[in-house]
Amino acid sequence: MTREKIYLFDTTLRDGQQTPGIDFSVEDKISIATMLDEFGLDYVEGGYPGANPTDTTFFDEKRTQSASFVAFGMTKRAGVSASNDPGLASLIQAKADAICFVAKSWDYHVKVALGCTNEENLECIAESVKAAVEAGKEALVDCEHFFDGYKANPTYALACAKTAYEAGARWVVLCDTNGGTQPPEVRAIIEAVIAEGVPGDCLGIHAHNDTGQAVANSLAAVEAGVRQIQGTLNGIGERCGNANLITLIPTLALKRAYSERFETSIDAERLVGLTSLSHAFDELLNRSPEHQAPYVGASAFATKAGIHASALLKDPRTYEHVPPESVGNFRKVMVSDQGGKSNFINALKRRGIDVGKDDPKLERLIQIVKEREASGYAYEGADASFELLARRTLGTIPEFFAIDGFRVMVERRFDSHGHVKIVSEAVVKIIIDGQTIMSVAEGDGPVNALDLALRKDFGKYQHEIDDLELADFKVRILNGGTEAITRVLIESTDSSGVRWWTVGVSENIIDASFQALMDSVIYKLMKNRHMAGKIAAE
Amino acid sequence: MTREKIYLFDTTLRDGQQTPGIDFSVEDKISIATMLDEFGLDYVEGGYPGANPTDTTFFDEKRTQSASFVAFGMTKRAGVSASNDPGLASLIQAKADAICFVAKSWDYHVKVALGCTNEENLECIAESVKAAVEAGKEALVDCEHFFDGYKANPTYALACAKTAYEAGARWVVLCDTNGGTQPPEVRAIIEAVIAEGVPGDCLGIHAHNDTGQAVANSLAAVEAGVRQIQGTLNGIGERCGNANLITLIPTLALKRAYSERFETSIDAERLVGLTSLSHAFDELLNRSPEHQAPYVGASAFATKAGIHASALLKDPRTYEHVPPESVGNFRKVMVSDQGGKSNFINALKRRGIDVGKDDPKLERLIQIVKEREASGYAYEGADASFELLARRTLGTIPEFFAIDGFRVMVERRFDSHGHVKIVSEAVVKIIIDGQTIMSVAEGDGPVNALDLALRKDFGKYQHEIDDLELADFKVRILNGGTEAITRVLIESTDSSGVRWWTVGVSENIIDASFQALMDSVIYKLMKNRHMAGKIAAE
Repeated sequence: MTREKIYLFDTTLRDGQQTPGIDFSVEDKISIATMLDEFGLDYVEGGYPGANPTDTTFFDEKRTQSASFVAFGMTKRAGVSASNDPGLASLIQAKADAICFVAKSWDYHVKVALGCTNEENLECIAESVKAAVEAGKEALVDCEHFFDGYKANPTYALACAKTAYEAGARWVVLCDTNGGTQPPEVRAIIEAVIAEGVPGDCLGIHAHNDTGQAVANSLAAVEAGVRQIQGTLNGIGERCGNANLITLIPTLALKRAYSERFETSIDAERLVGLTSLSHAFDELLNRSPEHQAPYVGASAFATKAGIHASALLKDPRTYEHVPPESVGNFRKVMVSDQGGKSNFINALKRRGIDVGKDDPKLERLIQIVKEREASGYAYEGADASFELLARRTLGTIPEFFAIDGFRVMVERRFDSHGHVKIVSEAVVKIIIDGQTIMSVAEGDGPVNALDLALRKDFGKYQHEIDDLELADFKVRILNGGTEAITRVLIESTDSSGVRWWTVGVSENIIDASFQALMDSVIYKLMKNRHMAGKIAAE
Repeated sequence: MTREKIYLFDTTLRDGQQTPGIDFSVEDKISIATMLDEFGLDYVEGGYPGANPTDTTFFDEKRTQSASFVAFGMTKRAGVSASNDPGLASLIQAKADAICFVAKSWDYHVKVALGCTNEENLECIAESVKAAVEAGKEALVDCEHFFDGYKANPTYALACAKTAYEAGARWVVLCDTNGGTQPPEVRAIIEAVIAEGVPGDCLGIHAHNDTGQAVANSLAAVEAGVRQIQGTLNGIGERCGNANLITLIPTLALKRAYSERFETSIDAERLVGLTSLSHAFDELLNRSPEHQAPYVGASAFATKAGIHASALLKDPRTYEHVPPESVGNFRKVMVSDQGGKSNFINALKRRGIDVGKDDPKLERLIQIVKEREASGYAYEGADASFELLARRTLGTIPEFFAIDGFRVMVERRFDSHGHVKIVSEAVVKIIIDGQTIMSVAEGDGPVNALDLALRKDFGKYQHEIDDLELADFKVRILNGGTEAITRVLIESTDSSGVRWWTVGVSENIIDASFQALMDSVIYKLMKNRHMAGKIAAE
């Protein structure tokens, strides 16, 4: 039996940009479009060219290789012809494969927000779609407020959808703009649209999560006949977010209720990259991945000690709704480190460190890593710090230098001209071969001053760290309040082009930064001695 | 028309306890049970007496006034009589109104986990229920793995449900233990159970969120006929969590698809306490509330400047799926550099600041906001800093105090015992009515020290800021390297329960934090004078 294709349309860069607290730069947008394109989505909506400088610049080039690159914008205004509408012109000129027009389909909003007649709005939809198609673009129409509009005036909402379809739109997308529609209503209304003559394989669904049902509404729409789903990475979006593609994709692929009838562009091989995609996106947003996220969360396949844990180990399939490895995630049974041990051995082997399964030092390392992760360290994102910790615990690392201490001072005062002046100064004392070296430096901030002072004079090692550069610096507060624990991640590089990550954790942001800086320098010294094996090669 | 009652069963203290990272003490359990009882839920499941010392102590007393207090535990073992089973005895002795038995209903698990015959398991269910009823307790039976069990062997799964019902269980709860069942399957299977003779008003649903559909599955079950929903506060629970009662309750109450047919114990008056309940629970867990949570999140009724914002202000009802005040939440229209003049005027109006469209000060404010946002400020996430900036620019803010300067010092050294010691000390000089007040404090880190020193002595204003509390602290590095720009966001609150956000931006993380701290204090002083109109009133 051939399966019908469900098309996946990503709006992370457009509706996702409406998330409170999220603002993408052009560089962010380029990275995200590349992630989405490489993962294999069908459509990547990039933004609203003409509405702001970021989106306009982003649409100077086509940003995807395989996915259709989509520009979003309004239909033409009432009272001007399609060829005389500057908004429509800039949409058509954007370097996109497709244009997604947003159109009002609730008569109340036509009157209040557009200030035109119902008929004029239908004409705007038809003429905009025709202009896009004539310019060689694929046309989509987002019917804004479709479900609420349908409840208020079904005839007019249907007329909007039908007009878009008949004018040549490849997709008519039914939007639950306010996010309050319930799954049974979604089903019933879509069945009415299809009965009216717009075929399901030209219909899309755009759901919001205001009642926690954006995923369920999208699937209810597929059941009712639609064949395109719009959503975002990790469900970001306006208010409570959009439908989460990271949840929908594996559900469509792995749940028999759907996989027997449907397929998407994400096959089993691509699906294994799901957890990495989700985490890479959070990394780009500089936020911690949600532990309880379906499929990809650290807890999604975790079981606490209790009635389930031992049964789970006997036969995981009867306690897991899907195999964790199918989405690139891992099983985690917190009562036993059996799974952990072989993971550790493999992680060490990849770094050129061989350790026997029964070596008591391995037990100690696992214990230390667990304790440190419980206190806030995250070795997943800090390969170099993990390797240093492993080598220290297994006893194969020389002590290049010792730290006697540091002092950092930040002062805000008025200078002699009455201007506010902020000074950051750091003093670092290190000991090399029994000799104390004391360095002082000023910097743009306390961490910069500390970094400059630390690397100012490294005695006999100085020439070895001259090409060390800090490439990135991330700070994460692990729990609320100014008394919180702070985790600092530092990315370093050198003239060889290799990059490595180190981590520091402390109640004190300066001390956390210092730990990560220190680890970076020690890793560099090790690397110079060809001790830091595989990370450099990987 | 009389509406049917949907019973609300909370398992935060039992299944919620299975959340990785969450462990309740007896005191925690007492506080949470009180919250749930006062809010008005029908059932509060407290834990598993006899399984661990916390739960055993917790069941020494009945912990609810109005809600049924429920003890959870296994059915009696096969091969012993009900009166000779010590587990069953300790359940019956617990100071609970009701007992919820967990029973296997998937034949595979009966064999593998219990090691008894299918018939013995049915006998255990029947005898346990009878023993509880004879002891004067209400009996519930959680049919574990019911949906997966039904798919594997429908006859046996149905026999378990029917046996529980016929033995006298008030509720037979169908559990999607692995969390992978889809809404259409939930509907179909429940219809089969009802057809088999177990009436819907004796059926409950226990859903997990492994495909992001615990809420949808619960509602699908209600549609199919069940009349009890089990869930947790904020959806905590094993793996991806349980059905979120904080989302389900308002959906049942406010969405016509349900409210026309059903009612719960949470009427309109109680529903107004929903946001507080959700936030109080997060507070107890010591974590920040999720901004994008349905109904109760800070972003749930937030709109960024853009195509929706100006229309929203014309008629909020057409852009909000429910009125925010019905669940005790607030509307929030955010300012950002994408906003036009009318957005600004409206944003100011909502804060009680009137300014004319042609006032040159308005142009200046827009200019300043744009420049500051370009340099890294984000006013959309910092309402209070925006209001202060606006009032300063429009010239309507008193100068409560001036800053003469601060000095922060962080030192790492060895103490006299050779242990590493890290000290953070801050000195702050403020001027009030021409008098300089100098304060010094030590803290866990430099920002904590600065916060403590700043608020240590505020002269004549001290009593006004005594109840000011910092609720959250976020740091974002805006571009790579230790020379980067840092943005700090601080969330504050006071005894009135109002929350406000302030922002600081600098190359220097200490200075950025100081700016945000200062804004928070000034906002608090303004708020005390009823100048910060709308945020406090809304």
